[in-house]
Amino acid sequence: MKGGDGANSYASNSIFQETAIMKTKPILEETIRSMFINTSPMPICFRMADLGCSSGPNALLVISHIMDTIYQICEEENVTHDRTPELQVFLNDLIGNDFNSLFNFIPNFYKKIENAKGEWSSRCFISAVPGSFYGRLFPSKSLHFFYSAFSTHWLSKVPDCYLNNLMNKGNLYMARTSPRHVFEAYLKQFETDFFNLLRSRSTEIVCGGRMMFMMIGRNTLDPRTSDCCYPYELLTKCLFELIPEGLVQEADIDSFDLPYYTPHKEEVKKIVEMEGSFSIDKLETIEINLDPRDDVSNKDFVFDELEVGKNVSNCIRAVTEAMFVSHFGDAIIEDLFARYAKLNNKKRKFEGIPRCNGQVKRLKTTMVC
Amino acid sequence: MKGGDGANSYASNSIFQETAIMKTKPILEETIRSMFINTSPMPICFRMADLGCSSGPNALLVISHIMDTIYQICEEENVTHDRTPELQVFLNDLIGNDFNSLFNFIPNFYKKIENAKGEWSSRCFISAVPGSFYGRLFPSKSLHFFYSAFSTHWLSKVPDCYLNNLMNKGNLYMARTSPRHVFEAYLKQFETDFFNLLRSRSTEIVCGGRMMFMMIGRNTLDPRTSDCCYPYELLTKCLFELIPEGLVQEADIDSFDLPYYTPHKEEVKKIVEMEGSFSIDKLETIEINLDPRDDVSNKDFVFDELEVGKNVSNCIRAVTEAMFVSHFGDAIIEDLFARYAKLNNKKRKFEGIPRCNGQVKRLKTTMVC
Repeated sequence: MKGGDGANSYASNSIFQETAIMKTKPILEETIRSMFINTSPMPICFRMADLGCSSGPNALLVISHIMDTIYQICEEENVTHDRTPELQVFLNDLIGNDFNSLFNFIPNFYKKIENAKGEWSSRCFISAVPGSFYGRLFPSKSLHFFYSAFSTHWLSKVPDCYLNNLMNKGNLYMARTSPRHVFEAYLKQFETDFFNLLRSRSTEIVCGGRMMFMMIGRNTLDPRTSDCCYPYELLTKCLFELIPEGLVQEADIDSFDLPYYTPHKEEVKKIVEMEGSFSIDKLETIEINLDPRDDVSNKDFVFDELEVGKNVSNCIRAVTEAMFVSHFGDAIIEDLFARYAKLNNKKRKFEGIPRCNGQVKRLKTTMVC
Repeated sequence: MKGGDGANSYASNSIFQETAIMKTKPILEETIRSMFINTSPMPICFRMADLGCSSGPNALLVISHIMDTIYQICEEENVTHDRTPELQVFLNDLIGNDFNSLFNFIPNFYKKIENAKGEWSSRCFISAVPGSFYGRLFPSKSLHFFYSAFSTHWLSKVPDCYLNNLMNKGNLYMARTSPRHVFEAYLKQFETDFFNLLRSRSTEIVCGGRMMFMMIGRNTLDPRTSDCCYPYELLTKCLFELIPEGLVQEADIDSFDLPYYTPHKEEVKKIVEMEGSFSIDKLETIEINLDPRDDVSNKDFVFDELEVGKNVSNCIRAVTEAMFVSHFGDAIIEDLFARYAKLNNKKRKFEGIPRCNGQVKRLKTTMVC
């Protein structure tokens, strides 16, 4: 993710993610409630982690939803101030994440909850844990709740066999025209990674603890009939446009692939069942446009095609720029994403581009023990 | 502290602090040993915090000393791998600290301990907690051990009364010529801050938990007869040299004061006793030159006056630059500290500058409960 708080940062371009977090707020509340209702007495300190928190304000938005819920439960149950649980939050992301920028949001966050909840606000303790969630991050049996939004579709690496044999020539990701073994290689890497994630968490979570994951997925089992590949097929076209101008080499496109996988919900289910530590309470999909403002049911809906193209481009740029810079250099970035914004508009206007590229999966699991 | 890993960063100029950490390693070991020997069975997870960790590698050096000690105890006691305690470390500093740079040291740190200790290395979990240690940082009764090196001599703010009345005209800090009420105002702020620190930790530490603090102090109760003010008296002289050149205004020097206090050990003792949550096991002072290489008993001793002046200047610059930049702007910094290096050499040669400006206090306390 692009750090800082500039115009192209993740912090400034994460409305897609924020929309999904807001839409799934009821499920988050329900999960927290069920944990408190099934636990008597309440935990003295409720410990949770946000896996793949990135550097924007969304991570704190999730904490505030959880605090709201715990606060409400305590009010309903007439729990006195000194007996309300403390909340310890671990914000996790890779070591290269811009934690400095994330921390800069904390003072205002504390001020807001102090205004809203008075003394109780002093019972929230935020920390950061740098490292990959595909391995161990926390001591054994130390956390009650794991949350993750828009992170677990990022693989730990590009599938090995795929990279070595350049089997997906001319694409940045699985494309609808990719040969079958490309899809298989991606799925295999996702299976390995998601299994490792579950196995690590199963050691770290307390008995009866819960997890809630949201990730980008696809709506059909066969990736060739899904819209999930579309945004990166379009981006590939933009990269190819830069070849005649000498800004990009075709070989560089061939050797670049995104460590990303958009699973179907049945694939997710299969891995959870195979790993065996967790049972699934709920597994749902929702659809959100890559520019959530491009939706008549959205109260901020403004139909402006140029704006929509730019928003979609900014969204994709904020989450992929660092990878493109490290492979292609930073000279092409402005041009590439300007083209992407334009192409997105054109396609949307004349070819009926699928607007719902964000198939979001919500997976709610309970630790089995 | 100056972030990053550049030539003027704290990470590259913290040999003074590193020397003190190495000299006090036996006390740290003794503290950890006494905790494990008095606790049966061993804790499943040993939780500790480094308060004011800054952004350099010293924080990880302390963790590696603690891991060494726990590992040795477990070997001596024939504790099997799966029963050795996990270690959860919270690195704390102010929100503005460069945590990104600090995190960049972690992968190499993990590699080193993996090479040295094999599988056991996977039992150490590092996290960061941004915020002031003069307030609450952790859930109640959640930590076994608090460590702090070179942080608690930094006050939460410049003493109020002192700032408002500009009572310390022409100085950056307490100077040997300062009027008595300046010393009193500084001491009062230190008392308030250190009391708040102890009170916050007393809520967060487990029963029987321990703390070990190292801070810069002074060797006499009367600050006017101590060397502690000397480094900043010299720096003030350098600032005054810039006035005729129009680079600094005298009024700006008058209105600038460092939020810093070098207590005498009796002052520290009094506050611990007054607060009442902790008993003191050990309270000692050691002397270290601001350039620790300027010491014939040091194996790296090289007698080079120019080098010594530069090292002392770099050491002071790394910990104060951000404050000078925010008050005087960054244009004067190079010039100021180049002058400081030169003046330090000159004074040392012709006037017998006190070399031991680092009176370091080691305070080891046990939680009383």
